[in-house]
Amino acid sequence: MRKAKTTTSSSRFAYDGLNRVIHERARLSLLTSLLTHPKGLWFGELKDLCALTDGNLNRHLLVLEEAKLISVTKALEGSRTQTRCRITALGRRRYLEYLSVLEQVIVDGAGALNRGSDADEGSPANA
Amino acid sequence: MRKAKTTTSSSRFAYDGLNRVIHERARLSLLTSLLTHPKGLWFGELKDLCALTDGNLNRHLLVLEEAKLISVTKALEGSRTQTRCRITALGRRRYLEYLSVLEQVIVDGAGALNRGSDADEGSPANA
Repeated sequence: MRKAKTTTSSSRFAYDGLNRVIHERARLSLLTSLLTHPKGLWFGELKDLCALTDGNLNRHLLVLEEAKLISVTKALEGSRTQTRCRITALGRRRYLEYLSVLEQVIVDGAGALNRGSDADEGSPANA
Repeated sequence: MRKAKTTTSSSRFAYDGLNRVIHERARLSLLTSLLTHPKGLWFGELKDLCALTDGNLNRHLLVLEEAKLISVTKALEGSRTQTRCRITALGRRRYLEYLSVLEQVIVDGAGALNRGSDADEGSPANA
């Protein structure tokens, strides 16, 4: 049981489910914004909601789009191209999976904080 | 109110409090392990609990030590150097602050997931 390098009972705190595409702060911010606005948001709205620069926003949207977690559509409004982003069904599913691992981090972390600093059992929090 | 690029009511989903030193997955894993074992863990124990290689573990421990979130002590046991790591008081405080932002992400994300995909109000989840 302890030989495998993948997550077993021995790698109790590895949190493999913290999908790196989603976990990065700017992308977590973007996905949460889009999740709460399922009909989509304009580029400028996302920029404001997530406090990102144009360059960073473009870079992270590309990563999310390539992972098929969001869809990006462009429309010509007069002489300007407007970009609209939406979370996909896959994006919702992956976010939900991610969230369940995040909840485990909070259970572990908050459990240990609540127990105070006098404990030191070999088993993890919430035993 | 909407001019500033820093977090204001307009950058509702920026989650500025997601401290980058802590948020990185391996370091979040390490800090949670150390938080649940306040008397410290040996290098080998951390490696197993977090499913990290020697190189990655060393690299991330250095980042956490430089941020004063953990303390690292070395002891000679026979001919081998043993490394022991502990979370510092500052580390506990920073982790607690981080956790409160993480809880907000979950409230936002889970709130939106629970509402389903038919809503699209301009205001964020849990309105």
